[in-house]
Amino acid sequence: MKRIFIKDLAVNGEEKVLLKGWVHKIRDLSHVSFILLRDKSGIIQLVCTKEQIKGLRLENAVEVTGIVRENEKAPKGMEIEVSDIKIAGTVYYDKLPFEIQSFKEKAALETQLDYRTISLRIPKKKAIFKVQNEIEEAFRMFFKGNDFEEIHTPKITHSGTEGGSEMFTVNYFNRRAFLAQSPQFWKQMMVGAGFERVFEVGYAYRAELHNTWRHLNEYVSLDVEMGFIKDETDLMEMEESFIRYLYKHLNEKCAEELKLFDVVLPEEINIPRIPLAKAQEILLTEFNKKSPVGNIDNEGEALFHKYVKEKYNSDYVFLTEYPTAKRPMYAMECEENREMTKSFDLIFKGVEITTGGQRIHDYEMLKAKMERLGLKLEDFAFYLDTFKYGMPPHGGFAIGLERITMQILNLGNIREASLFPRDMKRLTP
Amino acid sequence: MKRIFIKDLAVNGEEKVLLKGWVHKIRDLSHVSFILLRDKSGIIQLVCTKEQIKGLRLENAVEVTGIVRENEKAPKGMEIEVSDIKIAGTVYYDKLPFEIQSFKEKAALETQLDYRTISLRIPKKKAIFKVQNEIEEAFRMFFKGNDFEEIHTPKITHSGTEGGSEMFTVNYFNRRAFLAQSPQFWKQMMVGAGFERVFEVGYAYRAELHNTWRHLNEYVSLDVEMGFIKDETDLMEMEESFIRYLYKHLNEKCAEELKLFDVVLPEEINIPRIPLAKAQEILLTEFNKKSPVGNIDNEGEALFHKYVKEKYNSDYVFLTEYPTAKRPMYAMECEENREMTKSFDLIFKGVEITTGGQRIHDYEMLKAKMERLGLKLEDFAFYLDTFKYGMPPHGGFAIGLERITMQILNLGNIREASLFPRDMKRLTP
Repeated sequence: MKRIFIKDLAVNGEEKVLLKGWVHKIRDLSHVSFILLRDKSGIIQLVCTKEQIKGLRLENAVEVTGIVRENEKAPKGMEIEVSDIKIAGTVYYDKLPFEIQSFKEKAALETQLDYRTISLRIPKKKAIFKVQNEIEEAFRMFFKGNDFEEIHTPKITHSGTEGGSEMFTVNYFNRRAFLAQSPQFWKQMMVGAGFERVFEVGYAYRAELHNTWRHLNEYVSLDVEMGFIKDETDLMEMEESFIRYLYKHLNEKCAEELKLFDVVLPEEINIPRIPLAKAQEILLTEFNKKSPVGNIDNEGEALFHKYVKEKYNSDYVFLTEYPTAKRPMYAMECEENREMTKSFDLIFKGVEITTGGQRIHDYEMLKAKMERLGLKLEDFAFYLDTFKYGMPPHGGFAIGLERITMQILNLGNIREASLFPRDMKRLTP
Repeated sequence: MKRIFIKDLAVNGEEKVLLKGWVHKIRDLSHVSFILLRDKSGIIQLVCTKEQIKGLRLENAVEVTGIVRENEKAPKGMEIEVSDIKIAGTVYYDKLPFEIQSFKEKAALETQLDYRTISLRIPKKKAIFKVQNEIEEAFRMFFKGNDFEEIHTPKITHSGTEGGSEMFTVNYFNRRAFLAQSPQFWKQMMVGAGFERVFEVGYAYRAELHNTWRHLNEYVSLDVEMGFIKDETDLMEMEESFIRYLYKHLNEKCAEELKLFDVVLPEEINIPRIPLAKAQEILLTEFNKKSPVGNIDNEGEALFHKYVKEKYNSDYVFLTEYPTAKRPMYAMECEENREMTKSFDLIFKGVEITTGGQRIHDYEMLKAKMERLGLKLEDFAFYLDTFKYGMPPHGGFAIGLERITMQILNLGNIREASLFPRDMKRLTP
């Protein structure tokens, strides 16, 4: 008999079905016993005899045959009259690390992460990754639909993309190598190689020495790079269109999961674009909040979100015109003011989820800039060489997958949006 | 004016179009000049005046406006009568490292890899990655269609999945960590966490001390793991179905690219399954070729391909029943013979592209096996713990993305199937 998923069950005469899954809950009454069976697609009630549940424990993996019956009182209006139940996966615990059937968020996040196999069995915890999967799916579909091609760029590299700080070192056959902080150089090279429009879904590594609710040391970066742009506004338009597409996609595919988190995604999205200096000024006048030079700190981002939400009814805001001194060497400067770059951040509910901008595409300009910054040209030879062969105007951006997941679902800690997070202290599981 | 891709051009009255791309070829005749313009979607002929081509060099990035005219003599039966041509990306070379418009495979592979931005502009080189993209797309579509979910598992880990040999070490905040050889442990854990069926497209790292035409030290692994299986035959069936789906997909999406490589993909695929010992016997009797204990070497794989091709008209063969001594600790042993495992390799045109099999899912069995092999249980604590909570029978396999690309297109060197290959000597670009 072919196994059927719970989501596909339907009352169909006396037809026998084969189900597989885990024992989610056992209710042993005087005359009859009920089991809630959980598989990857849902939960269903089983009606068993005393004999059938003998030896069964919570979280046993089981194979069940039976007949689907209508029952208005059962969840989903159906239940299974069990004819046979067989243990497929034994359990060996004394006590579960925390309850799965009625998880009440009491277990510390660290405990949940230590027991990842168990905590992800909690339907609400698993729902996070259904949403994350659909974010990734929407990203891929949107950019493929706009003539972007997917690429894979190396994560082991001989030099830093942003100057070499905050990088993990790798012993590469007795040479010192690094884990790439971003696919920046390589995605630009692929634009130049004639792919024109590329994206990558891949890990980025940051050896940042702080443990916060919004940083991971290994995270999935949704990277985009686009050739033949007019300027950075093409990129903001592209990202804004993607966010619109994403919300539509999530409303279609994740209605149930969004409801679990009490999240309502608006159907209309219009993202204001505000120069950084202007935003700093608003923070000062509206909230008496001072900002560091050329940036807005975390508190400022949160306050500015409040302002934007009230004034524009938007969860998102593009901050534009970051100063040259605060952006990487490859950032394109504004013609009328070389102190400013054609770059932007996207702030979502007070948290930065994107950095992007136009890049320098002229060989001489890039070389001069590197020299001005005192970079060793030979460290970047392979990158710089690319710009000798007709590099078109281009730019791009990146979205942190765990960050946007966290912010959409209001999770409060980025580790909840990673199956196996890596932070300063955590290297397992 | 909105830019149009070359693939979308059509003769449409006197309508002006805007094209963007690179100068692929310049032909300067006495009365008129022709340019071949290349963008990501194709190549088209431009008809220019002497004035318009002044200062243009090969591989300049340009923006072109003009009118599409019918011309039977031009490639594709169309050409552009140029009204304006503007340089968007300057060139700074003395001489191109090799010719792009008429590349004749003379440049050594190492030179092509050094100049990746240039070598990928050669249409046939770029075609490899169109095919690779569609392999990945087919993989994702097939497994999503079969209720598999995509996951991302960590690449920085505290211990080895296969015992710790051949791993790159990472300095992780002054702790010794490793780059994961495979997502093996984590994909199994996700099966146990209730995802049941998972796949991952991600990098795997092997610090193997040999430089060959078929090894990369950083490669993309298409990983699959499936719960509630009967045995390893479920996995072979799943993989065989995928190969059928893949060939259909490639024939639909990559007809042009396959033609460039003179590759014809058969419409019918039936993969024979032959126990390893039987294959060794055949090699000995048919080719007088001896095999190492519990394996077949490279030469044997090539000879066996010849045999299978003649006898079964198949490019693929599953080798089954590998000995326990030659498989990792998590391999499920056969009930009737503990010296044998329920595992398999998939050999494609004489090259192994997959290792797979059923895994041990019982906690006590796995613990006993680890102890028998002298492994330190505390090194695998997080993994072993997973098996206490009802792990269903499961198994999986992995396909090397660059390997299957190389074998489909008969490339001869796996580096050609990687945008930025990493080998013992190569850390750049």
